[in-house]
Amino acid sequence: MYQFSEKSQALQAKLTAFMDEHIYPNEIAYAEQLHAAENRFAPLPIMDELKQKAKAAGLWNLFVPEKYAQYCDHGGLSNFDYAPLAEIMGRVVWSPEVFNCNAPDTGNMEVFMKYATPEQQEQWLTPLLKGEIKSSYAMTEPQVASSDATNIELSIKQEGDEWVLNGRKWFITGAMYELTKIFIVMGKSDPENENRHKQQTQVLVPKDTAGISIIRPLTTLGYDDAPIGHAEIVFDNVRVPVANVLLGEGRGFEIAQGRLGPGRMHHCMRLIGSAQRSLEFACKRANNRVTFGRPLSKHQSVREDISKSFSEIEMARLLVLKTCSLMDQNGAQASKDMIAASKTSVPLMVQNIIDRCMQMHGAGGLTEDYPMAEAFNYARWCRQADGPDQVHQMALGKQIIDRYAGE
Amino acid sequence: MYQFSEKSQALQAKLTAFMDEHIYPNEIAYAEQLHAAENRFAPLPIMDELKQKAKAAGLWNLFVPEKYAQYCDHGGLSNFDYAPLAEIMGRVVWSPEVFNCNAPDTGNMEVFMKYATPEQQEQWLTPLLKGEIKSSYAMTEPQVASSDATNIELSIKQEGDEWVLNGRKWFITGAMYELTKIFIVMGKSDPENENRHKQQTQVLVPKDTAGISIIRPLTTLGYDDAPIGHAEIVFDNVRVPVANVLLGEGRGFEIAQGRLGPGRMHHCMRLIGSAQRSLEFACKRANNRVTFGRPLSKHQSVREDISKSFSEIEMARLLVLKTCSLMDQNGAQASKDMIAASKTSVPLMVQNIIDRCMQMHGAGGLTEDYPMAEAFNYARWCRQADGPDQVHQMALGKQIIDRYAGE
Amino acid sequence: MYQFSEKSQALQAKLTAFMDEHIYPNEIAYAEQLHAAENRFAPLPIMDELKQKAKAAGLWNLFVPEKYAQYCDHGGLSNFDYAPLAEIMGRVVWSPEVFNCNAPDTGNMEVFMKYATPEQQEQWLTPLLKGEIKSSYAMTEPQVASSDATNIELSIKQEGDEWVLNGRKWFITGAMYELTKIFIVMGKSDPENENRHKQQTQVLVPKDTAGISIIRPLTTLGYDDAPIGHAEIVFDNVRVPVANVLLGEGRGFEIAQGRLGPGRMHHCMRLIGSAQRSLEFACKRANNRVTFGRPLSKHQSVREDISKSFSEIEMARLLVLKTCSLMDQNGAQASKDMIAASKTSVPLMVQNIIDRCMQMHGAGGLTEDYPMAEAFNYARWCRQADGPDQVHQMALGKQIIDRYAGE
Amino acid sequence: MYQFSEKSQALQAKLTAFMDEHIYPNEIAYAEQLHAAENRFAPLPIMDELKQKAKAAGLWNLFVPEKYAQYCDHGGLSNFDYAPLAEIMGRVVWSPEVFNCNAPDTGNMEVFMKYATPEQQEQWLTPLLKGEIKSSYAMTEPQVASSDATNIELSIKQEGDEWVLNGRKWFITGAMYELTKIFIVMGKSDPENENRHKQQTQVLVPKDTAGISIIRPLTTLGYDDAPIGHAEIVFDNVRVPVANVLLGEGRGFEIAQGRLGPGRMHHCMRLIGSAQRSLEFACKRANNRVTFGRPLSKHQSVREDISKSFSEIEMARLLVLKTCSLMDQNGAQASKDMIAASKTSVPLMVQNIIDRCMQMHGAGGLTEDYPMAEAFNYARWCRQADGPDQVHQMALGKQIIDRYAGE
Repeated sequence: MYQFSEKSQALQAKLTAFMDEHIYPNEIAYAEQLHAAENRFAPLPIMDELKQKAKAAGLWNLFVPEKYAQYCDHGGLSNFDYAPLAEIMGRVVWSPEVFNCNAPDTGNMEVFMKYATPEQQEQWLTPLLKGEIKSSYAMTEPQVASSDATNIELSIKQEGDEWVLNGRKWFITGAMYELTKIFIVMGKSDPENENRHKQQTQVLVPKDTAGISIIRPLTTLGYDDAPIGHAEIVFDNVRVPVANVLLGEGRGFEIAQGRLGPGRMHHCMRLIGSAQRSLEFACKRANNRVTFGRPLSKHQSVREDISKSFSEIEMARLLVLKTCSLMDQNGAQASKDMIAASKTSVPLMVQNIIDRCMQMHGAGGLTEDYPMAEAFNYARWCRQADGPDQVHQMALGKQIIDRYAGE
Repeated sequence: MYQFSEKSQALQAKLTAFMDEHIYPNEIAYAEQLHAAENRFAPLPIMDELKQKAKAAGLWNLFVPEKYAQYCDHGGLSNFDYAPLAEIMGRVVWSPEVFNCNAPDTGNMEVFMKYATPEQQEQWLTPLLKGEIKSSYAMTEPQVASSDATNIELSIKQEGDEWVLNGRKWFITGAMYELTKIFIVMGKSDPENENRHKQQTQVLVPKDTAGISIIRPLTTLGYDDAPIGHAEIVFDNVRVPVANVLLGEGRGFEIAQGRLGPGRMHHCMRLIGSAQRSLEFACKRANNRVTFGRPLSKHQSVREDISKSFSEIEMARLLVLKTCSLMDQNGAQASKDMIAASKTSVPLMVQNIIDRCMQMHGAGGLTEDYPMAEAFNYARWCRQADGPDQVHQMALGKQIIDRYAGE
Repeated sequence: MYQFSEKSQALQAKLTAFMDEHIYPNEIAYAEQLHAAENRFAPLPIMDELKQKAKAAGLWNLFVPEKYAQYCDHGGLSNFDYAPLAEIMGRVVWSPEVFNCNAPDTGNMEVFMKYATPEQQEQWLTPLLKGEIKSSYAMTEPQVASSDATNIELSIKQEGDEWVLNGRKWFITGAMYELTKIFIVMGKSDPENENRHKQQTQVLVPKDTAGISIIRPLTTLGYDDAPIGHAEIVFDNVRVPVANVLLGEGRGFEIAQGRLGPGRMHHCMRLIGSAQRSLEFACKRANNRVTFGRPLSKHQSVREDISKSFSEIEMARLLVLKTCSLMDQNGAQASKDMIAASKTSVPLMVQNIIDRCMQMHGAGGLTEDYPMAEAFNYARWCRQADGPDQVHQMALGKQIIDRYAGE
Repeated sequence: MYQFSEKSQALQAKLTAFMDEHIYPNEIAYAEQLHAAENRFAPLPIMDELKQKAKAAGLWNLFVPEKYAQYCDHGGLSNFDYAPLAEIMGRVVWSPEVFNCNAPDTGNMEVFMKYATPEQQEQWLTPLLKGEIKSSYAMTEPQVASSDATNIELSIKQEGDEWVLNGRKWFITGAMYELTKIFIVMGKSDPENENRHKQQTQVLVPKDTAGISIIRPLTTLGYDDAPIGHAEIVFDNVRVPVANVLLGEGRGFEIAQGRLGPGRMHHCMRLIGSAQRSLEFACKRANNRVTFGRPLSKHQSVREDISKSFSEIEMARLLVLKTCSLMDQNGAQASKDMIAASKTSVPLMVQNIIDRCMQMHGAGGLTEDYPMAEAFNYARWCRQADGPDQVHQMALGKQIIDRYAGE
């Protein structure tokens, strides 16, 4: 029914080989380095080694789309062609960083490609593309429903030739990571503007700017997602030059809208990889574990669960691929129905698949001995990331219903 | 991501127009004719009229695959290209017959194309292709788990130049329909054969053969599916000439295997059409029904249900299309994993979608005022048709698990 | 944890014996009489015989509550003590009528006990209690969301010494049954009244009053629930004496409120009986059916489904019993949270239980060979009866949330 | 329908007041002490303070059943009367320890009461009852399906007047806690015994015995459940005196059977408390959070989720109470059907309830700012604790099916 480009197919093969050779064999080592780290948010030596290897193997910045081909060596990939690559990376929760393909940097780099001045690009995009630094996107605030971007309250005021920022953010992914040097901060610069979509501005704020306090790492289901992590941050009279504005004053909402489509799909792709790998663990377990005198594989309920999971993964994958393909053809805005369908279907489905696969592993399935528990957390978290599913269902439901208005 | 052939696209447009012009406007008339019929299993006048119109419009025998193109006027359609057509027909539960595309005749006609002698074809296939007669496939037996075809017990013994049949069948779709003239009967001719897959034979039995008693129509969830229906039948010393054997003695199992793949997919395709139509009813209802001072469309739970249903239909459709495409490339046997995935996922998903859509219609949603309740029954029934889902999950689960044997 | 009164226990034993002796052995006969009936809404001879036997056995009007003990021979039963009796009756969908305990007559009789004048009682309640006539409660209208009783539009106007009724009702249970002689009709007598709960009036309308047209029987999932059934009815200048008002003009809403609590619980109780019987069928099937070389009972997924169903039935039963007990202590109004919890939990749970049990029976599970399919329809229908579940969840959700207001 | 004893009611009131005064206000302090602890498995100062207060308040050893009343000051409580107390404690995941009512010590203390010699009791039970020391129950092994206790492989051999233990255990709750001083170890002493239930022996092993290596703390969904935690332990030629045997050689299986009923119910009770508290958080959130211009409380889907969660909590609670009541009357063995029903229904239901409640809190719902995420982990873990649900469903399903054997 569909075929990936030869480029994508070649990269898939190369990436799979890289995972086999360098990633899976290092999962324990990675966990041990992280466990032993004095500062859980410092870069791990093994990550640095692996990044060099990935770069050498030509598996670098695979997320870069065709229209920004100048920023990568591979000529750019469509969303459709990137999807199976992201799926493969998603099999190990920390591996996307190895290929400079992790959230939120991919989305942030696209923002820089699309909206930044040459000076801003040189200062931040260039080292980001090299993987030398990392970035955060500071949008969500604890006190308001941030899935509606117009609710954002952090104040951005121009004083002289500076922007002054005051407010509180949380769930700022990557903010505590030592490699992270730059925050893209969304705030409200013109709260009285009659057009609710012109009240927002985004500015670039170097992480070491005075007035920034990183309050704490946040956990989800017990995971801190170190070293990238999610931070709560206070901005107290943080001052940056006016030149640090992105795109222009009052255009923050526009940037926010433009940023999100691919990011949501990348989460879905990676989650499918984690579900697929969980299913593979479950199959191996079914072959090897004997209970009550029979291997698990002979228990009808195990077979039904495997069967369901296989089918669901296939459906989730197809939904994502079709969505990507439509985005490639028509753009993200025109594909927002399918993006919402993916965003609200895939993480929940993956959560349930992994739940089943963990259950077949007994108590051990919940531990760090398998990647399933952490992937479960990733799936659960994605039901909130970029807004609770319910908000997207609200919009998608309305959109579908409206198609039949007047009938 | 995928595109239907120009032929398929043209037929889709024509078929949609035909549905708009001839089918939807006649749903009430059809129901009234059936309701008023003295014999619910007699052909309805309106069906005959519509068949003539469909034939005239070139919307006839659309199910015929490319390799049997000689049996149709349109040159044959791949499974993939037929899928959207079956979906459109599935929007009205009785409409496939209008286009000579209803079960079990499509499957039976394929059996005749594949396995019958020229004489058998002339006698039965020719009028079937014209829609002049209908057929049944007599496989399932009440006393054994018939999803394992080797369990079949109806006895077929050769005596002189005749086959003698004794046994009981049920859920024999179409058997009571007055148009039905021929039964393909699966039975056991060599119960002692060491090869369990050589014990079965299929023979052609004209419906009016002495010894056949149609005991009763069976209902599912209160529906008799008239005029096609499902019958219980006793075969009491039923005798047919030896020439009536299909393919050869001991080859019944082989035929049964060859028959089932496309049939299961056709059910799935049609069910997706019924789900899609139910969703459309739900959207219209959401726009037009006011409860507690707000249209249903403004209730968040309604939007979530619409959103979920939209997403699930999309996923089910993609699963079916990919399966069809693989069948086209590699054949049904090589695609049995995906066929099983479709067979066990789509009907259940559709049942749940229709359940939601009915619920938005209040008590009326359960009545004959909408096609949803009958489509619900169709979906529920498909979880048993061609074997309970659990049997297919058993096989699919095993197949997936076996892929990881030794790891 | 709880114990039924000795009276209830004795009645349970007697009722169980009666079911064993008279009801189960007559299920086929009942179905055959109904099937053969020229008029599906005429009383069946077998029902009449069974009613006499039940009356003779002292199993009559078991629904009558203690406060109306004068209307029965058994001294009245609390909701709690009646629950297990209704559960036993619920095992056969038509059996409650045998004991004069079927909906909607039980609810209607309570209305007569509570709100009718002595003259009204003599004319209608007396023969209803004897089972000589049946009754309907005409509330639901097709064009408005009738779960909000203030939406009711049927017009009731006083002209001289008569009430004149104009409007359309549907889902009027029992209306087509030949034994039914009296309708309690809810309508709007004072649409301009500022108090939305004073606009309604209920009047008694003999079924044979001029101007009443019974349009059609309605089906749900293919079932017409004959002979009791559900009708669509038009009232066209229907005239009854002013004395036919119930309780008083403008008090219709009050009656409607007072009527519904126990009725909803009776549905739940009976459904639990049908789920319990379905589970018993499933257990027997699991013992007796062999598939792929093992009895179903040895398939782990069958055991899991049996286990889940057992647990869910137990939970549903306990929820109903606790609700009944609270109603006995504090009245229906004060127990509306638990009534809503039961109404929105039990039918859906029962639908799912029966779905599983049907599935274990293969295609036969969907037919009339078992009582499961019809019970499935009853459960599905109860998710709409007395208002869609969603309406009750709206109220219950609000009630629970409000308990934490200000915190 | 049911009433708790006056003693239980008084304790419920006192316990609720204690929670209000001492536990909820200290949740942050507890988390901070644990967070700041150098050794996460050392006792926390705040716990010690709270234990003293609970003891002073007479809220101590509430789990002790009536038949062992001599071991407590309150005269003993039935399972039924203890259930609401455990529910209250379950509202804060670490609070049961405050009242000396945490797993696994409660179960272990019961083992000492039932099976230990006076010397063993004096040495271990006495300080356990005082809360001075803690204990572990070492049963589960990583390499075998330990839910079938006959699979246990740790070797226990008598050499001279010593038992010698060799093997590996994991998920040994409490083993790393510094207060823990004694392990009850289940192993195989007579692997060739024809009676599979006589092969096991349990011995008391002081934690500081030579040869014991605590390998690592295990996490579930990212939680280490410190300071109590779950350990992996190697026993390498661990030697204890023969007098350390519990009950007698070959009686280990018997002890294991006797231990488990109440423990499973205690988990269920506590989980209901955590679900109830999550629901209360959700209600408060619904009142206070505004999204898209309306408080969450006005969103119909929020109300439906609250309604469902309320109903499910009520059903789970009733199932647990009935099970407890039956255990009180007939013993755990005779109530194993209901224990299995509770064990396999309640944790899953609670997991789903908490999942919904977390979702209403946005991303924050997954963090440590609320107790929900950790309670979610507790519920998920209980689907494995004391054996995967599927094992219990296997047994319960069989038990129910067998009741209909021969029908």
